[in-house]
Amino acid sequence: MDMHHLTRELKQPGDSKIVLLVADGLGGLPMEPGGLTELETARTPNLDALATRGVLGSSIPVKPGITPGSGPGHLGLFGYDPLEYVIGRGALEATGIGFELGPRDVAIRGNFCTLDGAGNISDRRAGRIPSEESKLLAIRLREAKVPGIEVFVEPVKEHRFVVVLRGDGLKGDVHDTDPQITGVPPLDPVAHDPASQRTAEMAAKFIAEARRLLAGEKKANGVTLRGFSAKPALPSYEEVYGLRAAAIAVYPMYKGLARLVGMKIVGSAQTLAEQVAVLREHWNDFDFFFMHFKYTDSTGEDGNFDAKVKRIEELDAAMPEITALKPTVLIVTGDHSTPSYLKSHSWHPVPTLLVSDCCRTDGCRKFGEAEALHGGLGQFEAKYLMLLALANAGRLAKYGA
Amino acid sequence: MDMHHLTRELKQPGDSKIVLLVADGLGGLPMEPGGLTELETARTPNLDALATRGVLGSSIPVKPGITPGSGPGHLGLFGYDPLEYVIGRGALEATGIGFELGPRDVAIRGNFCTLDGAGNISDRRAGRIPSEESKLLAIRLREAKVPGIEVFVEPVKEHRFVVVLRGDGLKGDVHDTDPQITGVPPLDPVAHDPASQRTAEMAAKFIAEARRLLAGEKKANGVTLRGFSAKPALPSYEEVYGLRAAAIAVYPMYKGLARLVGMKIVGSAQTLAEQVAVLREHWNDFDFFFMHFKYTDSTGEDGNFDAKVKRIEELDAAMPEITALKPTVLIVTGDHSTPSYLKSHSWHPVPTLLVSDCCRTDGCRKFGEAEALHGGLGQFEAKYLMLLALANAGRLAKYGA
Repeated sequence: MDMHHLTRELKQPGDSKIVLLVADGLGGLPMEPGGLTELETARTPNLDALATRGVLGSSIPVKPGITPGSGPGHLGLFGYDPLEYVIGRGALEATGIGFELGPRDVAIRGNFCTLDGAGNISDRRAGRIPSEESKLLAIRLREAKVPGIEVFVEPVKEHRFVVVLRGDGLKGDVHDTDPQITGVPPLDPVAHDPASQRTAEMAAKFIAEARRLLAGEKKANGVTLRGFSAKPALPSYEEVYGLRAAAIAVYPMYKGLARLVGMKIVGSAQTLAEQVAVLREHWNDFDFFFMHFKYTDSTGEDGNFDAKVKRIEELDAAMPEITALKPTVLIVTGDHSTPSYLKSHSWHPVPTLLVSDCCRTDGCRKFGEAEALHGGLGQFEAKYLMLLALANAGRLAKYGA
Repeated sequence: MDMHHLTRELKQPGDSKIVLLVADGLGGLPMEPGGLTELETARTPNLDALATRGVLGSSIPVKPGITPGSGPGHLGLFGYDPLEYVIGRGALEATGIGFELGPRDVAIRGNFCTLDGAGNISDRRAGRIPSEESKLLAIRLREAKVPGIEVFVEPVKEHRFVVVLRGDGLKGDVHDTDPQITGVPPLDPVAHDPASQRTAEMAAKFIAEARRLLAGEKKANGVTLRGFSAKPALPSYEEVYGLRAAAIAVYPMYKGLARLVGMKIVGSAQTLAEQVAVLREHWNDFDFFFMHFKYTDSTGEDGNFDAKVKRIEELDAAMPEITALKPTVLIVTGDHSTPSYLKSHSWHPVPTLLVSDCCRTDGCRKFGEAEALHGGLGQFEAKYLMLLALANAGRLAKYGA
């Protein structure tokens, strides 16, 4: 479990500043055994200088061998046990497109599908309908009338969209309506528990409305609904850590995750330089800053080793402006590894760097995966990182007399 | 949780001897980044020779980033999960002054306070009353008569004292009576649960008696009570490990903590040399010896780097006499770090040394924080140390067939 029972008891105020810089998918792999990773290949004089002053370690996002998505990856770094706090798929999808969920909402992933004359599914993804077509259909679904509640529909990509049902007495425990096979009709929405009965009924009405609105379509004349989920109940940073926290992110998913733990989204930066400018501008208003850098992940996902190296060097070049603000604690890490070699997220521990006046320097001289193995933080589960941040910032009282 | 479900099942007898030498607050920090810690600065030829023969590691007292007090710090080393076993403040205070709590006791921290004519608190610490004055008042409170139970009062320091209520049907869950502010009267003792109702009533009678006995005092004419707590229910070393355990400590707090887990307090040593003599004298009577060395902590708390270095060298000089006894397993560690740089306990992992014939030597040559990062024990939570001690002593059977 997470350590919030401890931090709630031990948190103490201060004027220290913590910066958590998350380079998404930072960890990597060499392209051939014995080679260097992306981070080890990159020229990173500034990060290396910080590694020399600071302490290194390897962050295990969830548990050894477990590859996280963005949700669990960030929850871990934020100190919320990713095995305890689960963000439902609908809620994560809504978060990812920047939809701000409220307490009366149930979020659902919708898929357009193709139904044959008998009402059976002939294509579960509506012939891989292109985004530009599906977007218009999703917007058309906003005309669906479900008496007693509000319905929001947002396009995502290709056959996917998001539905949010807003109203009183809606719970999120409803079975998926996607039967996972073709040749059968979509399932009816069925509640797991009596408290979700009303949600199932409202979803059935939405589906009927969707059938009506899509009746003339060739490819996308039906919908299936998956991942029904309420807004996850995450206690806020203020509540569990006593921190006024700000998030400086470019992409909606990361703003959304930060918002779920009560961080305030500041600025509207589109580049790393703008993010640093926003950090400087809001320096006096917050105790904690989460900065998110996306491109170490996206280049890794593309399998573009050289591009990932360049993005890491871009990040390195931004460090002097961040350290010039003299944060009490500066952490550079990732939410998971995204090795170009695998073209996907992975389970490998993430090299992590923490700098403070009292961090106990460990003799490491370079920021990289191999060097981090000799670091003073050892290998640790990501969920403990916030404890180390708070301790180094002087924001945790002694446990027991 | 702790591992006692395993040790109860797997413990096996033997004639091996384990010595756990706890240098309180052993871990440290350099005074400037990149420098050496106290332990790394000290000349420790004997400990270095043991490091060469033995195996090193870094002990995390509770969890990463958590700074423990003496209670949780020692419980962890003793193998009792410090998050599972919590010693109430009253019980710890009583333990700290050497009061041996029994099963019918509730221990309470008392504070002398100053009440104005209206009965409101004007000073929560009775004008920081000096110990020589408050001691006499605490002794006077022994005259308090509370029919049906026994009352013990022990002086502590300045405005603090300890009250122990002894009787049948007393539980420890009673709210503090200290309102934490001045200008209001002390709170009445209120039970958290019905089982503690009688304790609350008896405490109210004690408070009334105290008011009567202190009526003529100028500064200390009232009391507040805090940290009501029963004796913590800790299974004994005999029970969970099958060990006859002895404690050789100078200060009451550490004797008290050892007593709580069923160790026998042996000798009345006042110096390290005397502690070693007591160890030698009782060598044949016990399987396990806990030796406590205080001064690495107190010098660290004073921020006196050089004095801490000297104390470590003093400890080093005592090692040959200990190893001459040929313990099967010798462990040198601390209950937490106390860096002179911070002048306080800290969360930093504690360098730990274990020597046995089968410990798997790891190539480390010196006992110190940085060297321990390369040690064979890695980083581990303190609560696992007793498992390693038992294993190296041949006192744990195989788990499963």
